[in-house]
Amino acid sequence: MRAALIYGAGDIRIEDVPDPVIKETTDALVRITAACICGSDLHPYGSMDAADGPGRTGHEFIGIVEDVGADVRTVQKGDLVVAPFAYSDGTCVYCREGLQTSCIHGGFWARGGVDGGQGEAARVPLADGTLVKLPVAADSALIPSLLTLSDVLGTGHHAAVKAGVKAGDTVTVIGDGAVGLMAVLSARRLGAEQIILMGRHAARTDLGRELGATDVVAERGQEGIAKVREITGGDGSPIVLEAVGHMPAYEQAYGVVRPGGVISRVGVPQYEAAPVGFGSLFGGNITLTGGPAPARAYIEELLPDIMEGRIEPGKVFDRSVDLDGVPDGYRAMADRTALKVLVRP
Amino acid sequence: MRAALIYGAGDIRIEDVPDPVIKETTDALVRITAACICGSDLHPYGSMDAADGPGRTGHEFIGIVEDVGADVRTVQKGDLVVAPFAYSDGTCVYCREGLQTSCIHGGFWARGGVDGGQGEAARVPLADGTLVKLPVAADSALIPSLLTLSDVLGTGHHAAVKAGVKAGDTVTVIGDGAVGLMAVLSARRLGAEQIILMGRHAARTDLGRELGATDVVAERGQEGIAKVREITGGDGSPIVLEAVGHMPAYEQAYGVVRPGGVISRVGVPQYEAAPVGFGSLFGGNITLTGGPAPARAYIEELLPDIMEGRIEPGKVFDRSVDLDGVPDGYRAMADRTALKVLVRP
Repeated sequence: MRAALIYGAGDIRIEDVPDPVIKETTDALVRITAACICGSDLHPYGSMDAADGPGRTGHEFIGIVEDVGADVRTVQKGDLVVAPFAYSDGTCVYCREGLQTSCIHGGFWARGGVDGGQGEAARVPLADGTLVKLPVAADSALIPSLLTLSDVLGTGHHAAVKAGVKAGDTVTVIGDGAVGLMAVLSARRLGAEQIILMGRHAARTDLGRELGATDVVAERGQEGIAKVREITGGDGSPIVLEAVGHMPAYEQAYGVVRPGGVISRVGVPQYEAAPVGFGSLFGGNITLTGGPAPARAYIEELLPDIMEGRIEPGKVFDRSVDLDGVPDGYRAMADRTALKVLVRP
Repeated sequence: MRAALIYGAGDIRIEDVPDPVIKETTDALVRITAACICGSDLHPYGSMDAADGPGRTGHEFIGIVEDVGADVRTVQKGDLVVAPFAYSDGTCVYCREGLQTSCIHGGFWARGGVDGGQGEAARVPLADGTLVKLPVAADSALIPSLLTLSDVLGTGHHAAVKAGVKAGDTVTVIGDGAVGLMAVLSARRLGAEQIILMGRHAARTDLGRELGATDVVAERGQEGIAKVREITGGDGSPIVLEAVGHMPAYEQAYGVVRPGGVISRVGVPQYEAAPVGFGSLFGGNITLTGGPAPARAYIEELLPDIMEGRIEPGKVFDRSVDLDGVPDGYRAMADRTALKVLVRP
């Protein structure tokens, strides 16, 4: 089959790779019908050392089950399924608590010999715990929205859930990428009343308004912080959802958060150390939370809202490519001419 | 009057200072009958530059109201009162939310011309919001326990509250100082079932067992982390209360915390930057919370437990001095021959 490989920064190629086969009795084989490119894919695309390549790419996909191992019970040949960005057994202590990203036997796509999502097919480990059958056909108009269940919708939702967003809240979302916009949608869905979106790409912040943002702050740094403080009456934002992962976004987060408030991070941090002392988090009793979203945990809750048209997260896709178009898709997302690229292998 | 002053690291002196007088109509004058030395006093005692001195010291006291300003309503001359370690107006938006350490008009003792607690008397700003009348005489046997309401008990309680400790929980407390021991007592009081105390001073950890610790880990660093993980069945501790404030304690905290768990810090951080990225907090969806305890917020809840003998936080005092004994008290706490020193001016 054919799949995307990353050879280093800026270097994505479509090549022939071995066809996936069932290795474990808990595996499924899935022919991928829809996948996408993630903001987090842009981190290696921006900085990966060629010595670390090549490697498979992609971690969000929908596809049709072609075969299952002897112990797979919840999906069968012909099912249309969505895969969350981490595979998980569904039975360990963490999975039972809804923290599938910490599954004892789980892992992430495109690492350690596991297939990626940007290819024609994938072997899915731990299929029962990982895959969720979708109640539509592979050509449904809902596919873009359903595909966001694999990552960006669940990730935005996770940011809001970990921050405890509830009816009437004031929430600031940092970042107008797909995850930031899903955080806006999720905060709105959970009842937030005032949603301040910090982002400087007008097309994206316009979509943010459509998804629930009540205010947009295009300024960054101290100017952006001052603007958010002004909008919130001087005190700052009780809840901040950080959907970028770079240090300036973290600095904005503790700059705009209100004493006693919470910063919920879902942008994968591109730093290890950050300010957490008296002058940043401690003095104001700020809570820092978040992490990789257990997207699997949220699918059952979010799916009906998509099926019944209450939310349309698929709006984050503004470009569609076939597998050969994946390198162009990366370029377009990296230079911000595309928000999020759908891949139809 | 006489009060303690810090001239620099290791240099505490008792000197004559101006008698406090009512400056604002919201002030009270309090003759101090009981005070103490805090673990956080040891930070400047360990490292203060002489160029920054001299300064007043102490932030925990009980005393008798000698005079009040014209607008003071809740305390009057002759009342025995306890002061929390931050003064606050009791009416601002943060005070109403129970976050008095972020009071818009409040502040901390011994800074900016405000008296300290280690002296014969103090002018108390914002007396109505700050002071709480005690239902005992100044010579009550309960004074040591009641004095802990000013800081260490409230601070240990805050650690447990911010971490969400509830019945049946497993909690690890890092630090066997007075705050750590109060965190043990507070976790127990809120129903924690397994309380692992990390500390290496046997006399202190013995007291920790008396106050509720079920396990003691004397090892530090990687060895201590491995021990806590062993005790918790390999997964780590769902709740960690960090009661020290130095980097090794922070490192122990994220080393022992379970995926999805919470680290609640109340030791004043002696660092600004710390690991928070994928390898420390983010990857495991760890929540970092805590800050300066709004001790004032907890007095009404904790006072009855002391009055009715359900808790005896005063057990943390193992030495008593008069005002002239304060320099010796600092020395004893700094070299760990005293756990916490009571001062009777």
